[in-house]
Amino acid sequence: MHPLLSKVESPSDLTGFSTAELEALAAEMRDVLCNLVSDRTAHFASNLGVVELCLALHTAFDFRRDRLIWDTGHQIYPHKLITGRYHEFSTMRVKGGLMGYPNPAESDFDLFMTGHAGCSVSTALGMKAADDLLGESDRHSVAVIGDGAFPSGIVFEAMNNAGGLKKKLLVILNDNQMSICPRVGGVADYLDRLRVNPFYMGLKTEVQKALMHVPMVGEGMEKLLWQAKESIKAGLHGGMLFEELGFRYIGPIDGHNIGQLKKYLKLVKEVNGPVLLHVMTEKGHGFKPAAEDPVFFHTPAPFVREDDCVISIKKSSTRAYTDVASDAILAAMQRDEHVVVLTAAMCQGNKLERVRDAVPDRFYDTGICESHAVAFAAGMAKSGLRPIVDIYSTFLQRSYDQLFQEVALQNLPVTLMLDRAGVVGPDGPTHHGVFDIGYLRVFPNMVVMAPGDEADLTAMLDFSLGHDSSCSIRYPKCNAETIAREVAPIELGRAEVLEWGDDGMIVCCGALLPQAVKAATKLRSEGLDVGVINARFVKPLDTHTILRAIEHAPFVLTVEEGCLMGGFGSAVLETACDAGLDTANIKRLGIPDHFVEHGERGELLADLGLDANGIAAAAREMATRCEPVKTPERRRVS
Amino acid sequence: MHPLLSKVESPSDLTGFSTAELEALAAEMRDVLCNLVSDRTAHFASNLGVVELCLALHTAFDFRRDRLIWDTGHQIYPHKLITGRYHEFSTMRVKGGLMGYPNPAESDFDLFMTGHAGCSVSTALGMKAADDLLGESDRHSVAVIGDGAFPSGIVFEAMNNAGGLKKKLLVILNDNQMSICPRVGGVADYLDRLRVNPFYMGLKTEVQKALMHVPMVGEGMEKLLWQAKESIKAGLHGGMLFEELGFRYIGPIDGHNIGQLKKYLKLVKEVNGPVLLHVMTEKGHGFKPAAEDPVFFHTPAPFVREDDCVISIKKSSTRAYTDVASDAILAAMQRDEHVVVLTAAMCQGNKLERVRDAVPDRFYDTGICESHAVAFAAGMAKSGLRPIVDIYSTFLQRSYDQLFQEVALQNLPVTLMLDRAGVVGPDGPTHHGVFDIGYLRVFPNMVVMAPGDEADLTAMLDFSLGHDSSCSIRYPKCNAETIAREVAPIELGRAEVLEWGDDGMIVCCGALLPQAVKAATKLRSEGLDVGVINARFVKPLDTHTILRAIEHAPFVLTVEEGCLMGGFGSAVLETACDAGLDTANIKRLGIPDHFVEHGERGELLADLGLDANGIAAAAREMATRCEPVKTPERRRVS
Repeated sequence: MHPLLSKVESPSDLTGFSTAELEALAAEMRDVLCNLVSDRTAHFASNLGVVELCLALHTAFDFRRDRLIWDTGHQIYPHKLITGRYHEFSTMRVKGGLMGYPNPAESDFDLFMTGHAGCSVSTALGMKAADDLLGESDRHSVAVIGDGAFPSGIVFEAMNNAGGLKKKLLVILNDNQMSICPRVGGVADYLDRLRVNPFYMGLKTEVQKALMHVPMVGEGMEKLLWQAKESIKAGLHGGMLFEELGFRYIGPIDGHNIGQLKKYLKLVKEVNGPVLLHVMTEKGHGFKPAAEDPVFFHTPAPFVREDDCVISIKKSSTRAYTDVASDAILAAMQRDEHVVVLTAAMCQGNKLERVRDAVPDRFYDTGICESHAVAFAAGMAKSGLRPIVDIYSTFLQRSYDQLFQEVALQNLPVTLMLDRAGVVGPDGPTHHGVFDIGYLRVFPNMVVMAPGDEADLTAMLDFSLGHDSSCSIRYPKCNAETIAREVAPIELGRAEVLEWGDDGMIVCCGALLPQAVKAATKLRSEGLDVGVINARFVKPLDTHTILRAIEHAPFVLTVEEGCLMGGFGSAVLETACDAGLDTANIKRLGIPDHFVEHGERGELLADLGLDANGIAAAAREMATRCEPVKTPERRRVS
Repeated sequence: MHPLLSKVESPSDLTGFSTAELEALAAEMRDVLCNLVSDRTAHFASNLGVVELCLALHTAFDFRRDRLIWDTGHQIYPHKLITGRYHEFSTMRVKGGLMGYPNPAESDFDLFMTGHAGCSVSTALGMKAADDLLGESDRHSVAVIGDGAFPSGIVFEAMNNAGGLKKKLLVILNDNQMSICPRVGGVADYLDRLRVNPFYMGLKTEVQKALMHVPMVGEGMEKLLWQAKESIKAGLHGGMLFEELGFRYIGPIDGHNIGQLKKYLKLVKEVNGPVLLHVMTEKGHGFKPAAEDPVFFHTPAPFVREDDCVISIKKSSTRAYTDVASDAILAAMQRDEHVVVLTAAMCQGNKLERVRDAVPDRFYDTGICESHAVAFAAGMAKSGLRPIVDIYSTFLQRSYDQLFQEVALQNLPVTLMLDRAGVVGPDGPTHHGVFDIGYLRVFPNMVVMAPGDEADLTAMLDFSLGHDSSCSIRYPKCNAETIAREVAPIELGRAEVLEWGDDGMIVCCGALLPQAVKAATKLRSEGLDVGVINARFVKPLDTHTILRAIEHAPFVLTVEEGCLMGGFGSAVLETACDAGLDTANIKRLGIPDHFVEHGERGELLADLGLDANGIAAAAREMATRCEPVKTPERRRVS
């Protein structure tokens, strides 16, 4: 089926491939990519865009010794296909199978797991500096970075440092004019201007001629190249932004022309010092529907295709927490003109397109610049607005210091919506949002909330917008569920008791609440009367209710979809200890001290003992361990 | 003594001051600054450098409505002097007195506490965007940012966003060619090139003439200005880096010429859209010794002056943890060529000048770019080096996501040295390093250590360099002390028992150990036999030793110089709970859930109950509360 690709066990097998053969190989690789995403959700359009670049890189360099970082790593699929993983490719993003990002455990060709954007220039520079110190300066170091990741502050920091150190480093700007959503900001405008420069447009300028005819050797070529660049600078200002930082800028060139790519890669290999090669690619290239709608096809739902057409898309009819959040945000913005929303290139992921379209002047997408987004929101709050920052739990780590200084320390009413808080499923360890409870609750002034179900989420946002300090709300990537009950209003630091139990209590923090309720129902059917508390607040904790449970229930089981180190359960222990209570009857369920692999969320939760079965099992064990000592006051929810 | 300054209660009092009067006022302000730092350690050279800029800003704008952020905030002193705080100026950096950074609690003229560098452009942009939305677009927004802070990634993120949004925003680059130490990197080189451009050198070019004679009104002026800029660009490439991001670049201009500053500030007020005004200042200007050695005079030790000479400097003869760390780093680097050290503009603060001079090729200063520094170190570790990242605890927050993805997730052997971990004293809440235990221990693979004394620190660094995963070592800003004992070697996850006690145990995490030992000595003299454990490891915790203490001692007191939320004491509670032990006999001492003000470290520790007296008092209370129930095995250190 894939006659060329199936024989490529390693990039060294590409030696001697003609450009035409590489093009045929590219077609086979695209076919594999299309087959994969017809079957399951995976990163797609970005991978279609880098097939030729990947092949050109692996023929121009030897990455058994040279260093290659893909940033971000979701464009790694073509690389995986030609580095010995074609035959396991169907296991992509399946538990126990290939990871959808680079994974050093899979292959020596994968150097860093790069699920978060923008660190490639730093790590590639670090490897280069180290290789030089170790006497291995023949090793090349290459970072491929998308234009979406490019405006991240750390890229600028790294380029600033590289420009100063003058290390031999190749940064390839993979410019497909997109982040996941269309890119924004001054750099984006700048790249758009570069695109129309005559060099890229194919005009036969003196400059281009000079570049085409330089000999492929040391000093002479460099000098010529430099002179050529100087004339571009003077005439067209091409790449000045990068040149001023100490980089030599070359481009833009066509990222789907393997011949041209190979030629330029050979050329830049000879340049001493940092080079930025600007490569234009088309996201979704080679599959028409994806090229036409690269936003949808970034990580499309599975679809049926025929030739180059998408026949049907298997759409899910369920409503996720992300939808609930997006609805609640829009409603709040329509109700109150002081409410604004900010995201960091997650407009699609957070389902904010509707908000953007309905209230464009109060919607801000900063691009992949989480640090700035949070500080920017703090400035808005200072001026009297009520900003909502809607960023994935794991990506919010990028703004940790701004959460400290600009938000918590100034005690500004910024609302943080942490989507993807918990195990996210197939994206794996770079994307699981499992540290936020621990990392946020250390800050004074910060209110930390987790909705138990859909009803809580909207109410918590509304509460937060009326509360005069910093608030955070975390919720997972899964379908929203609702616990049938008369919902208690959200009050600062108040938990919601669903039911007291004679034999034990489950105190659940966040959206595992339906699992906890299922576990309790099951346990009751077995004769064990276990109650459930919807904790709602990690901080301030409902000390009164929780101490009462610890004091009166034979056992207390805390449940959270976050790390056990310093998490919600620890907050419960702290409160108990401060009150001088015995905590031997408390057990904490959560994520233990290791990184969680990729897999379906349900599978992972089951493995972690965080589904209804796992919770029930832990409760049974505690019931056996802890003898009932007191009769708790019973207070059933009507 | 200060006839002009003493009458300035508010910037509005400057109305009608001639340039000559402003210059006289500037001289008085410098005198106040010199008096202050003769008396105590405070930020000095940077404040001398911005006197004229501060006066020009407050005469050109009305910051009762307009917005002004000083970044970083240690250049705030002149601003404080003319915004109603001259008469309390002698209380600067004293507990209960003025803060050495902007403080909204002191004055409405202070908008954000800005102890961490680089966020001013974001917050100023946020305020501008909000003011526009609120119909108050007449309010100007100004960020003054030093060239040291300028290469921080967040500045680039903010400028990228500002360029895209095209908001009216004034960024003043206060260029004194210094971070705290001389600045580094591509941007630094670039700014050096801008300095020698003819515009600044005072040549009477067409361009300059055009700029000087533009009328001070709307469109006409703007157009002229723009045309002038275009010719500068074409001819000199001045400010292209900023122009490409969507900013209009003007400068560089002389930051000590009040007349020129006022003229340009008036000019740029009329420009719609983001402007970067490049102002050249001299750090230490007006006080010769400081201008000649701005590194020493950044925050000098108190000195005696006569006229413009420093007669003598009151040097301290003590040895701080920072010195111990620096010695240990140098020794390790001389022993092993694989060891490299990185810092983020903290060469002086971390006393690494000696290391830089002795081993220049393995010393890296990234400038104020903590995110990059950590990712860069991870790259080096990947190539086989043993990088040490030496950054203050609080500034390491800037690299939180890189600690997660590039270090802990990849499990690379990067050693983090967290200087200033604990309460730092007069710098106050932006600089106290009190969250690191909580924020680091959530990450799998991360070893978290805190030396109990000087002997531990060197041994921990050596241990870390031989250990194959990520390690962190935290120590405070204070004099190193040594506990007389036969020092047990550092072993992963092993605490050091100094002495068991019949009546209770103090488990101390970090450099409060001498205080704990003093407390125990005092208690013993009162007849209470309290032992002491030097915990050494927060993670992995010495479960065996600590559980034994909890099980056998009548009470256990945990002591840490860090936040109680999720800190060391919580780790102890988690371990006890996991083992099913009663924790009612545990009390945790540490920093409660509020931001700690500024003051001398000793004063603050006493207030927090973390000195020997406080520890002893807590132990006495626990001894009263917890009846001795078991006789612990006694094992006295010989």
